[in-house]
Amino acid sequence: MSVYFDNAATTPLAPEVLDAMVPYMKEHFGNPSSIHSHGRKTKSAIEKARKKVADLLNTSPSEIFFTSGGTEADNFAIKRSIDTFNLTHAISSPLEHHAVLHTLEHLQKIGKVKLSMVNTDGKGNIDYDHLRDLLQGNSRSLVSLMHGNNEVGNLTDMERIGELCKEYQALYHSDTVQTMGHYVHDLQKLNVDFVVGSAHKFHGPKGVGFLYVNADAKIKPMIYGGAQERNMRGGTENLYGIIGLAKALELAYEEMNEHRTSIEQVKLYMIEQLKHKIAGVDFNGESGNLDKSLYTVLNVCLPPTDNADMLLFNLDIHQISASGGSACSSGSDVGSHVLRALDRPKDRGAVRFSFSRYNTKEEVDYVVEKLAEMYTVSDLS
Amino acid sequence: MSVYFDNAATTPLAPEVLDAMVPYMKEHFGNPSSIHSHGRKTKSAIEKARKKVADLLNTSPSEIFFTSGGTEADNFAIKRSIDTFNLTHAISSPLEHHAVLHTLEHLQKIGKVKLSMVNTDGKGNIDYDHLRDLLQGNSRSLVSLMHGNNEVGNLTDMERIGELCKEYQALYHSDTVQTMGHYVHDLQKLNVDFVVGSAHKFHGPKGVGFLYVNADAKIKPMIYGGAQERNMRGGTENLYGIIGLAKALELAYEEMNEHRTSIEQVKLYMIEQLKHKIAGVDFNGESGNLDKSLYTVLNVCLPPTDNADMLLFNLDIHQISASGGSACSSGSDVGSHVLRALDRPKDRGAVRFSFSRYNTKEEVDYVVEKLAEMYTVSDLS
Repeated sequence: MSVYFDNAATTPLAPEVLDAMVPYMKEHFGNPSSIHSHGRKTKSAIEKARKKVADLLNTSPSEIFFTSGGTEADNFAIKRSIDTFNLTHAISSPLEHHAVLHTLEHLQKIGKVKLSMVNTDGKGNIDYDHLRDLLQGNSRSLVSLMHGNNEVGNLTDMERIGELCKEYQALYHSDTVQTMGHYVHDLQKLNVDFVVGSAHKFHGPKGVGFLYVNADAKIKPMIYGGAQERNMRGGTENLYGIIGLAKALELAYEEMNEHRTSIEQVKLYMIEQLKHKIAGVDFNGESGNLDKSLYTVLNVCLPPTDNADMLLFNLDIHQISASGGSACSSGSDVGSHVLRALDRPKDRGAVRFSFSRYNTKEEVDYVVEKLAEMYTVSDLS
Repeated sequence: MSVYFDNAATTPLAPEVLDAMVPYMKEHFGNPSSIHSHGRKTKSAIEKARKKVADLLNTSPSEIFFTSGGTEADNFAIKRSIDTFNLTHAISSPLEHHAVLHTLEHLQKIGKVKLSMVNTDGKGNIDYDHLRDLLQGNSRSLVSLMHGNNEVGNLTDMERIGELCKEYQALYHSDTVQTMGHYVHDLQKLNVDFVVGSAHKFHGPKGVGFLYVNADAKIKPMIYGGAQERNMRGGTENLYGIIGLAKALELAYEEMNEHRTSIEQVKLYMIEQLKHKIAGVDFNGESGNLDKSLYTVLNVCLPPTDNADMLLFNLDIHQISASGGSACSSGSDVGSHVLRALDRPKDRGAVRFSFSRYNTKEEVDYVVEKLAEMYTVSDLS
């Protein structure tokens, strides 16, 4: 049996999404900036995709800008909001994705902003009172706090953060890469200036994402060049990527409740089975709490062992794909900055299992069985 | 008959390229940063693609960075070389693509660099003596001069520019978007620091390109985030895009001579037929000269008419797709900055026809016939 439990890293492309993309890879190839029929056909398809995304998020197409992915969108939201509005202070948290943290750290290093980190508790929850203090005690700030954490699944309260930002005239960016397509984002209700999406996290194609820019927080261009994306991001559009993104988000919204129910059952079942089969198992961050974490992510804190480093390797041998920290950092081999930010025993291995609508309880049985075997073998050694 | 003569704007995806991409859209979907088998499979495919591109350009894989396209690559080469090497002077030309011009103009506006424009003659040819003067009379410069012009096809002498840049320790960036895959670039021989490629200009996919960064001109990161592209550009890779880019460049190199011969014949035939059928026809820039221009581009200067504005519209009615200026600017509807930089009669319509290996002389016959008819009707009206 081969099990893919690494859906927070990337998801398989849904067949319906590929079907929607193929006509634009075969017949309709015009440059959307060309004014002839070849170009008008693809321009129209892109604008339909933009309207679809905007409708699903309850906002205007003029606030949706397609990018090459979530990381690019995070980079530009942060850099360009600081540039455009001459902000000198930013607030973030130690649990953010590197797309946010490394961008802010760079801006701090070159003297563009002072960077304050909001306090978090041992499980990684944000201290909202401290956030208020930071907003109150500094000049107008950019707040960058993710919605759902990619490693331990912790959810932040976007409404609450939005209200605080409104009170202190702060700009609010949220890295929503892990929740886009999995939770409803009603941008009319949320007081947020920038949210992002990455298609491959919700069964869309890789290499495409979007940035929502609130009309009241219009930033300077991201990439200079042609007039694409209403002069905000030059460069011929990733046509099939954009078509695929919109289709994937549409599917995600259409069946969100069904997907959520099905995935929650898989996650809950895995929690139960792990507790039942592996004594002393625990869960990192809030990931064991269904109300406070992504239903797609379960970060397991395994009992102490000498072979913690070998966990992922042993899972891989059994054709089980899971992650240590986030996939994005695994190439760099320096361990997880998110797990380091939590109060947790350092001698215990951590594995992130992350689920999609294609996963089943049978797969959970297989994975838990293999994990339990490893711990038995390990105890004997 | 439907004729697509707008290949400088974008080219159709080659079927062989799509075939190479499909397995990565269906089966092999892992995040290349994941260390499990799903990830290793795609990581390996990306590194093979990088090696393929590097081999074709006679350089090292460590100097190839995949991007979302040519415009992004141009933006980052310019911005980050100026940042990294503290350059305060840049040299460019009025015929550059907006990806270069708008980026440099922005940097000039915010006080980062002084921007000098090299003189060009009435046909848009660069004055190399003036380039030397500019290099000599200023601090260490970034030189950004394109290889093949996207509107009028003019070619620059990369060897000559490279030698001049070497003499004055200038950094040399060339927007090679129109020549990549159509001409051989031997990066061991050329003294160039940055060249770029955009896959959809050589029958590869849209939304993917690359930046070559000479090891001696290593710049700061382009996008902050994960460790992708050796920490130079964070964000999950456009997996199928990269696979498609490498395959398209491979095909382009394998059959470059055949493609070139075939396309040159189409261009030459169109020049002959236009001269024969439309009295007073001329060619903008150097595009009528096969030795001094891209074999893919012919920019036609048509006789004076009251209906010059309607030319593209009338061609479109006959299902002929061509451009006025570049497609990239056509959405902005402000006319061509390249044509404005040339000495040419302002009352004459200009149409850019651009060819690919899929075009034929029969298509030329059809287009010239329709153009000739328009001019006959126009004369009668």
